[in-house]
Amino acid sequence: MVKVGVVGYGTVGQRLADGVVLQKDMELVGVADVEPTLAILALKEKGMPYNLYLATPENKNKFDKYGIPISGSLEDLIKKVDIILDATSAGVGEKNKVLYQRYNKKAIFQGGEKTSVADVFFHGYANYEKGIGKQFLKLTSCNTTGVIRSVDCLDRGIGISNVIMTIVRRIADPGDYHRGLTDALRVDPVPSHQATDLMLVMPHIKATGILIHTPVTHGHIITIVATPKRKTTKEEVLELFRAHPRIRVVRIADGFLGNASLFKYARDLGNLRGDMYEIAVFEETVEIFEDQIVYAINVPQEAVVTPENIDGIRASMEMQKDRLEAVNMTNKYLKIGGN
Amino acid sequence: MVKVGVVGYGTVGQRLADGVVLQKDMELVGVADVEPTLAILALKEKGMPYNLYLATPENKNKFDKYGIPISGSLEDLIKKVDIILDATSAGVGEKNKVLYQRYNKKAIFQGGEKTSVADVFFHGYANYEKGIGKQFLKLTSCNTTGVIRSVDCLDRGIGISNVIMTIVRRIADPGDYHRGLTDALRVDPVPSHQATDLMLVMPHIKATGILIHTPVTHGHIITIVATPKRKTTKEEVLELFRAHPRIRVVRIADGFLGNASLFKYARDLGNLRGDMYEIAVFEETVEIFEDQIVYAINVPQEAVVTPENIDGIRASMEMQKDRLEAVNMTNKYLKIGGN
Amino acid sequence: MVKVGVVGYGTVGQRLADGVVLQKDMELVGVADVEPTLAILALKEKGMPYNLYLATPENKNKFDKYGIPISGSLEDLIKKVDIILDATSAGVGEKNKVLYQRYNKKAIFQGGEKTSVADVFFHGYANYEKGIGKQFLKLTSCNTTGVIRSVDCLDRGIGISNVIMTIVRRIADPGDYHRGLTDALRVDPVPSHQATDLMLVMPHIKATGILIHTPVTHGHIITIVATPKRKTTKEEVLELFRAHPRIRVVRIADGFLGNASLFKYARDLGNLRGDMYEIAVFEETVEIFEDQIVYAINVPQEAVVTPENIDGIRASMEMQKDRLEAVNMTNKYLKIGGN
Amino acid sequence: MVKVGVVGYGTVGQRLADGVVLQKDMELVGVADVEPTLAILALKEKGMPYNLYLATPENKNKFDKYGIPISGSLEDLIKKVDIILDATSAGVGEKNKVLYQRYNKKAIFQGGEKTSVADVFFHGYANYEKGIGKQFLKLTSCNTTGVIRSVDCLDRGIGISNVIMTIVRRIADPGDYHRGLTDALRVDPVPSHQATDLMLVMPHIKATGILIHTPVTHGHIITIVATPKRKTTKEEVLELFRAHPRIRVVRIADGFLGNASLFKYARDLGNLRGDMYEIAVFEETVEIFEDQIVYAINVPQEAVVTPENIDGIRASMEMQKDRLEAVNMTNKYLKIGGN
Repeated sequence: MVKVGVVGYGTVGQRLADGVVLQKDMELVGVADVEPTLAILALKEKGMPYNLYLATPENKNKFDKYGIPISGSLEDLIKKVDIILDATSAGVGEKNKVLYQRYNKKAIFQGGEKTSVADVFFHGYANYEKGIGKQFLKLTSCNTTGVIRSVDCLDRGIGISNVIMTIVRRIADPGDYHRGLTDALRVDPVPSHQATDLMLVMPHIKATGILIHTPVTHGHIITIVATPKRKTTKEEVLELFRAHPRIRVVRIADGFLGNASLFKYARDLGNLRGDMYEIAVFEETVEIFEDQIVYAINVPQEAVVTPENIDGIRASMEMQKDRLEAVNMTNKYLKIGGN
Repeated sequence: MVKVGVVGYGTVGQRLADGVVLQKDMELVGVADVEPTLAILALKEKGMPYNLYLATPENKNKFDKYGIPISGSLEDLIKKVDIILDATSAGVGEKNKVLYQRYNKKAIFQGGEKTSVADVFFHGYANYEKGIGKQFLKLTSCNTTGVIRSVDCLDRGIGISNVIMTIVRRIADPGDYHRGLTDALRVDPVPSHQATDLMLVMPHIKATGILIHTPVTHGHIITIVATPKRKTTKEEVLELFRAHPRIRVVRIADGFLGNASLFKYARDLGNLRGDMYEIAVFEETVEIFEDQIVYAINVPQEAVVTPENIDGIRASMEMQKDRLEAVNMTNKYLKIGGN
Repeated sequence: MVKVGVVGYGTVGQRLADGVVLQKDMELVGVADVEPTLAILALKEKGMPYNLYLATPENKNKFDKYGIPISGSLEDLIKKVDIILDATSAGVGEKNKVLYQRYNKKAIFQGGEKTSVADVFFHGYANYEKGIGKQFLKLTSCNTTGVIRSVDCLDRGIGISNVIMTIVRRIADPGDYHRGLTDALRVDPVPSHQATDLMLVMPHIKATGILIHTPVTHGHIITIVATPKRKTTKEEVLELFRAHPRIRVVRIADGFLGNASLFKYARDLGNLRGDMYEIAVFEETVEIFEDQIVYAINVPQEAVVTPENIDGIRASMEMQKDRLEAVNMTNKYLKIGGN
Repeated sequence: MVKVGVVGYGTVGQRLADGVVLQKDMELVGVADVEPTLAILALKEKGMPYNLYLATPENKNKFDKYGIPISGSLEDLIKKVDIILDATSAGVGEKNKVLYQRYNKKAIFQGGEKTSVADVFFHGYANYEKGIGKQFLKLTSCNTTGVIRSVDCLDRGIGISNVIMTIVRRIADPGDYHRGLTDALRVDPVPSHQATDLMLVMPHIKATGILIHTPVTHGHIITIVATPKRKTTKEEVLELFRAHPRIRVVRIADGFLGNASLFKYARDLGNLRGDMYEIAVFEETVEIFEDQIVYAINVPQEAVVTPENIDGIRASMEMQKDRLEAVNMTNKYLKIGGN
């Protein structure tokens, strides 16, 4: 049993903890945070299924006020685990790294950290082998994770030489009050970080991307123009996507009209927190146009990185040496791909 | 075991079915619908935990296409049950009533139907006794259900003579594509139906209301000015609200900033579909101003009517003769109020 | 000719400058700002109808890059004018006040400044007399300005003892990217600043208010419950509103469905920038309920304070000693109330 | 003086009328509509600068109620003009065509009509010559008009063989209450009508497009991947765009962050209704990637088709035989391109 700690119990950290708990070959030792946020209050109301460690001892009285039991300090947590999933705000992970090094523990950082924080920029499906045995991994961001799943899928099946993305991005998560956009689309300069990140993880592919922020909360939609290395067909592309456990091919004609449909569907499935691990490809957007592959995907930003983080544990801890063996173990415990 | 059927498996119907299943003294015989919607596709993906009956036999091939098993016709369902929760679109319930009468079955209609469809306009807490043994009940709408909970609570504790509401309404549910509003507030003429409905259910109280539609999906916020029959204090009001199982008193200072915080919190609690049965009162909005009580509530539109619908089954089927005994049984099985 | 300078050429400052230019008894000497914002770029594209002064000499090269002519420093502007309309960001006005004092010039600050910055908290209709001859005035914020117009109108006609407001607030202006809200309503603790501000300007009236932020940009909608000192009728209330030049009584039945309708209508009128100076009362929301007056108004946040700012110049500069004479002069030059 | 009538005084019709009035070689005889909408009420409040004709005589009393003068019937208008700009709702234009034929008048239909309604599918810059002397033209929709401006610009300068678009579409206009979307992105099947329409107008170019609806009102943003017939550079592309009168090259670094910035800027310019005729190219999105041209444009949906409609009058009425002479005349009177 690999002992795991989750540092940062926010939108991503909560979901990483939930995902680790489902792995029968891992043990969640606890989670750490700094303030009694709503996520922590919910943990309390649920009866503390996860032990909570406090990264800010000076805030202990704030937690006492709510009667929230604290199991120790951040360092206490670090000492007890084999590996940390660091899901703190951008920049904090880099500071925490000093602690992880002090106790010679492994750690996985999220997409918001600088790439230099880690030994390898990791994606479970695309470059699992590079993460094996490494002390520090950095995961791709939610958007990049989703894009790479689909591009890696096509690349392994057909061969891809370059991709052009239009990333229609959700501006906030449900419940966010600290960021938002109202009746406005925002454009970023090209290339977007998703493109440069993709090239770091998949250096044999060239990529560019335009990012457009939109006032929604339920998932990013990304259109992709991928240039294959050989001729292909819509049917081949769809078959490859369908065979990928972390990709759902959905049909607009069935009612999957956009990101909000997929959010609703995940809730209707009874998924914990109404989350979905899979990206979706809208079948009716797949087209071979002048020898380029065109398609649109939906990326559920809150939970999409959970599987790849768990893949990262498997790689870093050398739990599986084989890529497919590893991701399939993750998928099995997360109940992904059985649909 | 009272046998229950749910007709209409949309946003409300799904939640009614989920709620009935949790009642140890009720049995969900099945649900009925007309089209293979996303909710039905999710039911299929979950392995058909509920039997599905088809109200439109001519659509059977549409369900066959997805391999969705059908357990019979709408009439088959009606024959097997003691009572129907009719959660169809506004106006359809009235048409279905003919069938319920034909088989001499009881039924509970939702807020969208005409009030004349039922023998009594029902609210579990406010007028349970009036529903006892009646064949046809109509439940109040989501907004009115939430408002009445709070007004009935104050009325039983202090006595209320009149209420003035500003209903800041969400325009759509998450996942809705058939209705919406973009960068606009919409005002309706006074009095809103919530006020006239409240007076029908609580005829000893006068009410008016202004309705403002807003482009959000995660719950209505309603400000209420209630005139008490005697002097009261903020502390007394809060104590009454805190003692009510279906009302949560939350604090802005704790991070409950608005409707989206409550939606997020319900997801973080791990509630099914990320739902919440309770309305919330924002503690910092409660004020006694010139002898009137002022406060703001949050109404989670998707699930808020579930408890009162189940109360309705208890009344109509004469499962409990006592109001508090009935609502407490509902609360117990829905795990409401333990917080 | 009273010489006026506008400091801060943002959403409000632009509109104040436009309004001053229309006054035949005032002269706009120039406007001052700190950065080449879009508003300044538009000024340049229009051929510099207003002289621009620079409050940050160190930024001169930024303006040179765009070829924007600068007429001098902020102090140059102050020296040339009789009175300044300070429309800078909250807190900056207080710092600028030192300069205004140094040159012994009058100034009018906006609602974001601390009330202590000024000699009187001013509203053209409600307390014109208090502003006469004063060196420093502070204007009420957009919401408070709108509310006071309507409450003062009723107070002078009927007598008002107290008001309870629900302020359904727009979160951003069109074009704002630095603030926003997405699919969320936010509630603030009571009483809102609008209520306390109203009591400062109209100390004979008691007020409270609940503020709800909404993800829209085209105007605030405020519901008001006002307790009159004597019995009144809906007709009397409407007649008073109709007789007020800065209040439009509009009908939902005519298509004025909410804040976005009024924004559209102002554009269709051909108003500069698509602005409207008047607040609107929705006729179908006016009701006498249990001896209280209930109504809803729309406040166009961008331009609504322009008339009262100009009233402020008239008071401070002693251009008119009589309240009605002053506001009518403002109205005449702004073409308000001819409808 | 060519005599022009505008049928349908909605969002587009109002702007067409405003645009025709500015043409010194055209005369606006009047506008026609069916109901006393807000646009008509604004026309009344402005003192009826345009004569109003009534397409629904049975509604005359509705107009009388507001004291709106009617100059005659729709047929009266048709008889008086040389050419009609039909800006009615989709499908109505086809019905009106019978009248235009009866009186042997020319007409220009908008993008919502079926392509078969007209003799030629027209765009002022792309295929002016095809419209010369034709009785019936159909204009491209707002999105297609904007895309074609940019693609035609590159095609004439460099040669373009195919284009792939991601159309991030605004769901409603400011003031719309009859359509909207709330916290949801919607995806349409490929290819979008903009792609098929582009190929009809520019048959030598292949096109496809994915359409994503977003909950905003201030303009569409479209990313375009265009394959040139020869190698090009970012500088050449930008130079071509800058030389086009109906294209503005704007910089994100200057504050043009997205569609809402452009809306704000047009208001700050003092443009009538806060409109903009030009599309914008975001300079920092222009990139040559693997020999394809990538860029993003902003399309102000309300007014963007006005210039091309007026070009259509010039073609159909044979006012200018030369394409550039015609569009430059339109530009001159609309004050486009002097920036």
